[in-house]
Amino acid sequence: MISQRKTLKDLINDSTKIIRAVGAHNALGAKLVEINGFDAVWASGFEISTAYARPDANILTMTEFLYAASQMVEATNLPIIADCDTGFGNVNNVIRMVKDYEKAGIAAVCIEDKLFPKMNSFISTRQNLICTEEFCNKISAAINTRVDPNFLVIARVEALIAGYSMNEALERAVAYSESGADMILIHSKQKDPSEIFEFCKKWTHKTPIVIVPTTYTSLNLVQVKEHNIKMVIYANQALRASIKAVNKVLSTLNNTGILKSIDSELAKMDELFELQGMNEMLAEEKLYQLMSIQKV
Amino acid sequence: MISQRKTLKDLINDSTKIIRAVGAHNALGAKLVEINGFDAVWASGFEISTAYARPDANILTMTEFLYAASQMVEATNLPIIADCDTGFGNVNNVIRMVKDYEKAGIAAVCIEDKLFPKMNSFISTRQNLICTEEFCNKISAAINTRVDPNFLVIARVEALIAGYSMNEALERAVAYSESGADMILIHSKQKDPSEIFEFCKKWTHKTPIVIVPTTYTSLNLVQVKEHNIKMVIYANQALRASIKAVNKVLSTLNNTGILKSIDSELAKMDELFELQGMNEMLAEEKLYQLMSIQKV
Amino acid sequence: MISQRKTLKDLINDSTKIIRAVGAHNALGAKLVEINGFDAVWASGFEISTAYARPDANILTMTEFLYAASQMVEATNLPIIADCDTGFGNVNNVIRMVKDYEKAGIAAVCIEDKLFPKMNSFISTRQNLICTEEFCNKISAAINTRVDPNFLVIARVEALIAGYSMNEALERAVAYSESGADMILIHSKQKDPSEIFEFCKKWTHKTPIVIVPTTYTSLNLVQVKEHNIKMVIYANQALRASIKAVNKVLSTLNNTGILKSIDSELAKMDELFELQGMNEMLAEEKLYQLMSIQKV
Amino acid sequence: MISQRKTLKDLINDSTKIIRAVGAHNALGAKLVEINGFDAVWASGFEISTAYARPDANILTMTEFLYAASQMVEATNLPIIADCDTGFGNVNNVIRMVKDYEKAGIAAVCIEDKLFPKMNSFISTRQNLICTEEFCNKISAAINTRVDPNFLVIARVEALIAGYSMNEALERAVAYSESGADMILIHSKQKDPSEIFEFCKKWTHKTPIVIVPTTYTSLNLVQVKEHNIKMVIYANQALRASIKAVNKVLSTLNNTGILKSIDSELAKMDELFELQGMNEMLAEEKLYQLMSIQKV
Repeated sequence: MISQRKTLKDLINDSTKIIRAVGAHNALGAKLVEINGFDAVWASGFEISTAYARPDANILTMTEFLYAASQMVEATNLPIIADCDTGFGNVNNVIRMVKDYEKAGIAAVCIEDKLFPKMNSFISTRQNLICTEEFCNKISAAINTRVDPNFLVIARVEALIAGYSMNEALERAVAYSESGADMILIHSKQKDPSEIFEFCKKWTHKTPIVIVPTTYTSLNLVQVKEHNIKMVIYANQALRASIKAVNKVLSTLNNTGILKSIDSELAKMDELFELQGMNEMLAEEKLYQLMSIQKV
Repeated sequence: MISQRKTLKDLINDSTKIIRAVGAHNALGAKLVEINGFDAVWASGFEISTAYARPDANILTMTEFLYAASQMVEATNLPIIADCDTGFGNVNNVIRMVKDYEKAGIAAVCIEDKLFPKMNSFISTRQNLICTEEFCNKISAAINTRVDPNFLVIARVEALIAGYSMNEALERAVAYSESGADMILIHSKQKDPSEIFEFCKKWTHKTPIVIVPTTYTSLNLVQVKEHNIKMVIYANQALRASIKAVNKVLSTLNNTGILKSIDSELAKMDELFELQGMNEMLAEEKLYQLMSIQKV
Repeated sequence: MISQRKTLKDLINDSTKIIRAVGAHNALGAKLVEINGFDAVWASGFEISTAYARPDANILTMTEFLYAASQMVEATNLPIIADCDTGFGNVNNVIRMVKDYEKAGIAAVCIEDKLFPKMNSFISTRQNLICTEEFCNKISAAINTRVDPNFLVIARVEALIAGYSMNEALERAVAYSESGADMILIHSKQKDPSEIFEFCKKWTHKTPIVIVPTTYTSLNLVQVKEHNIKMVIYANQALRASIKAVNKVLSTLNNTGILKSIDSELAKMDELFELQGMNEMLAEEKLYQLMSIQKV
Repeated sequence: MISQRKTLKDLINDSTKIIRAVGAHNALGAKLVEINGFDAVWASGFEISTAYARPDANILTMTEFLYAASQMVEATNLPIIADCDTGFGNVNNVIRMVKDYEKAGIAAVCIEDKLFPKMNSFISTRQNLICTEEFCNKISAAINTRVDPNFLVIARVEALIAGYSMNEALERAVAYSESGADMILIHSKQKDPSEIFEFCKKWTHKTPIVIVPTTYTSLNLVQVKEHNIKMVIYANQALRASIKAVNKVLSTLNNTGILKSIDSELAKMDELFELQGMNEMLAEEKLYQLMSIQKV
C-alpha cells in the first residue's frame, strides 16, 4: 500500500510522464486497468453508484464508496485514487474520511467544491458550490490529518460545471492550491477542450493539473502534453463498455436460447480463474501440503 | 420482496414454463438481466468472487455474498436466487444463513453437498462431498427455519462433478428431495449434456430439476423441455462478456490515447443515469419542491 | 419484523398505555431492554456513536447506524425505533433511508429538524435548524416511500434545543404533524420538565407526543400521564451504567491482579451463553443429529 | 498502527514485564481498557458474539469479527490482539485472514487448533481438534503471509479443553512453536490453575506462554511470574460487569419510573462526550474556522 503511494508520487515528480488513470468500481475492474497498461485506478463515484443502481448524488454512504476502493487496493499494484465527492459532509467528516482512506491504503483522495449532497456534474440541475473559504478548510484539514505525506489530496474545481466564470475557476484553484492541495482537478462538460485549454494557459502555479475528458473525447495525449496537464482520468468508459457488451450478449441469448451463440463474445473460464488468483491459491495450498508431508 | 418470491413460485407451478436465470454479481447486473427479458437472477458465487478478485473457494465470507445479493433485491423486480455454496459451515451456519437471506428479500437459496470450504466445480482438485445424512440435516434445518413458505431451498448435487456414479447422484437427489428440498440442481462439467440427460431420464420424483450448462453450451431450450428440466441457469456469461469488452476497449485506448476511438463501444452516459435511477430521483426531488411551494 | 411494527402500533392505539423505550447500541443491549420489561428499543445515535468512540455529529455513516439497528431486530421481539438524526442528507437521502430501514424490519424511524451534519443536542454550539418547509418535505417523502403503513415516522422538534421560542416549536410541530408525521418528539435540555409541560399543555393536535428526559430526571410517570405524553425514551442510561461499571471493575482488577476480587460484580458465563442463544443452538443442533440417526 | 505492534513486541522482549490484556467487543471497550492502565486489548470472539446476541460458535463471519477489531485500532494506542478462532476455515482462509487483519492495523492474531466451525471452550460438547500437521500448516501460512514481522501469530492449544493428555498438549505446543508461532496460548477450563502450572513447568521452549484464567480466578500475578507466563488475558470480565450493571439499573428504572433513581449508577454525559472524542472534534472544528477568518 505504501509502495502504491510512492509509485504515484514518483510518477508526478517525473516531468516527462503523463499519468493515465482509468475508472473502476470493484477489485476486478482495478485489475483490468493494471493488466491493460495504465498507471492508476480512479475509484469512480459515478461507476460505484451505477454498480449499486443508485443515483450519483451521495445516495451511497462513505462506507460503501470506501469499501469498493479498499477492495481495489488488495487486487492491484497500481495506486488507487478515490473519488470522495464533497468529503461526505463538513470538515469533521473530511477528517474521518482521510483517516479511513489512508488506513485502507488508498494513494490519493479527490474532493470537490460542491455542497453535500452533491449532484453528478453532467446533470444540469442544482450544481451548488460551497464557498471558497469553507472548501479551503476542508483541504487544510485533509492535509493536516494525513500521516503519510505521500497520501495525496486532489482538489476538484466545479466552477465551470456550475456555470461560473473562468476567473472564478482560477481564483478557486489558486486558493485550493495555497491551502495545500497536491493537485488541481479542473472539470468541464464542454464537447471540446477549449475551456480546459484556456484554464491551463492561465494556470501559472506549479500545482499539477488533472482533467476528466468524458465529454471532450477528441482530446489526444499530444494536446495533454502541450497544455502541461499531468493526469488524465478516463473515468467511466470501462463500465460503459461492460454494459454495452452485457446487453448485447444477453439480448442474443434471449433470442437463441443457446450458449454457443455467444461463446465467442466471452472471456474464457480460465481467464477468470486467473483474475481471481485461483492458480496462485492452489499453488500455495499445495506448498503447505507438501511441507506437512515432508515433516512426517 | 415478498412478491419476488411469489413470482418464482408461480413460474415453478406453471408447467408450460422453463425458467431462465442469469448470473450477476451486483445490483447493476441484476437490472441488466431484467431489462433483457430473463426470469430470475442467479447471485453467482463465482461471479461475486471474481468481482472481488478472490478465488471461488469460500475465501469471501457470507457477509460479502449476502451483501451483493441483497443489493440485487433492491434493484430489480425479478426473484433473486442466491448461490450459497455449502451454507458457510455446518447446520448452525445454515440456520443463520436462511434467516439472513430471507430477511434480505432473497427468493431462493441454493446449497451444495460439498465440504466447507468448497472448491469451484470446474477446478479438478479436492471435490470432497459431505455425507448424505449431514447434507439432509442442512436441508431440513433450512426448511424448518424459513418463515415464508415461498422462500425456496435448492439442493445442489455435486456427485457427478466429484467423479461419483450416476447412482450416487440419483440417491443423493432422492434423499435431498425427501428432506424437503424445493428443487434439485444437478451439476455437470461434461462438454455435452449426455450425463444430464441420463440423470433426467432416471429422475422419477416430482421435485423440479435445475441445470447450469456452463460447459455443455450446445444445449437448446427444446432439449431442456424434452428432458423436463424446470430451470436453466446461465451462471457467468454476463461477467465474461464484460471482461472481454473491457479488455478490448482499454487495449484500444492504451494504443490510441483518444477516447473517441472507443466511443462506439460504449453505452451512453444517459443510459447509465437511467440504470442508476437518476431520472426517477430527480422527478421525486422536483415533486417535493413543488409540494412545499404550493404550501407557501 | 412485521409483528414488531404491529406491536408498536397497538401500543400507540391503546389509550391507557405509556410506551417506555430504552436506548441501546447493539443486539445484546436490545435483548437486555426486553428482558427488563420495557416496551421498545431506541437505537440511539448517541449510544452507537459512543460505542464506536466517535462524536455524535454524523461522523458515522447511515450504513453504520443501520447495521447496529438491524442487528437489534434479530435479537428481540420488541419494536426497534431508530434514531436517524437528520435523515443523513436531503430528501433523496431520506427516501433511501426509509427503504433500507423498512427492509431491515425497523418499526419506526425518527428524524430531526437540524441541518446535516447534526450536532448532539446537549452540546452548546451550532444547533442549526433546517427551514420548516424543507423538513416537511422530508416527512412527506418518508411517508410516501414506506410500504407498510405500520412503519412509523417520528418528527423530532429541536426548536427549544436551538434556543427558539415555544411558539416556533409549536408551529413546527403542527407543520410536521400535518405533513404526516406519526408522532412528535419534543426535545428539551432543561434541568426540569417545565418547558416540556408547557408544550404539552399547548399541544391540541392528536398526534402523540414523545419525550427524552435525559436532563430532567425528576420526571415521573404520573406526570407523563397527566401531560398526555405517549412515549418516554430513556435514551442512554444503559450505556452510561455500563461504562461506570466497567471502569469500576477494571480499576479494581488493575489494583488487585486477581479475578476473584471482581467476581461478585460480574454476570455469570451461563447468563452470557443464554443471551447468545447458545442453548437454543445446541438444542437445534442435537435435534438435527437425532433426525439423521433415526433415518439410518 | 505500526507503533501499536512495536509496543507489543517491546513488551514481549522486556523480560521483567507481564503483559495484561483485557477483552473488548467494540472501540469504546478498547478505550476503557486503555484508560484503566492495561497493556493490550483482546478482541474477544466470545464478547463480540455476545454483543451480536449470537452463539460463540463461528456463527458470525470473519467480516464481523474483523470489523469490531478494526474499530478498536482507531480508538486506542494499545495493541489489539484479535481472537481469530480457527482462522475461519482452512489454510487459504488463514492467508486471507492474515492479509486483512494486518492491513487493519491489528498487532497480533490468535488461532486455535479446533475444527471449523469451533465451539466455545466452556461448552462441554464437540471440542474436536484439527490434526497437528494441518494446524502447523496454518501457522506456517500465517507467518509466511505477514509483511510486518512485528505482526504476531499466537497459537492456541485446546488439547486440555478437549480432554487430551498433558503430553498431547505439550507435543502440540512444541510443533506449533517450531512452525513459527510467536506465542503459545495454553487454555484450561479447570477451577484451579494446577494443570496450567504443570504445563508451564514442563515447557522448556523459549516461545512465551499466554493464559486465559476465566475459570481459575484465584490466580495472582506473583504465581504468573513464578511460572514464567508472559501474558494474561482477562477475556470477558468487562462485558460481564456491563451486563450485570445494565440489568440492575433497568430493573430499578422499571420499578421506579424515575431516572433520578438510577442517576448515581451512571457515568456522566460529559464523560461519554470525552470518550467519543467530541471535545477534540470541536477544538479542530474551531481551529479551521479561525484559519478561514484569519485569511479573510
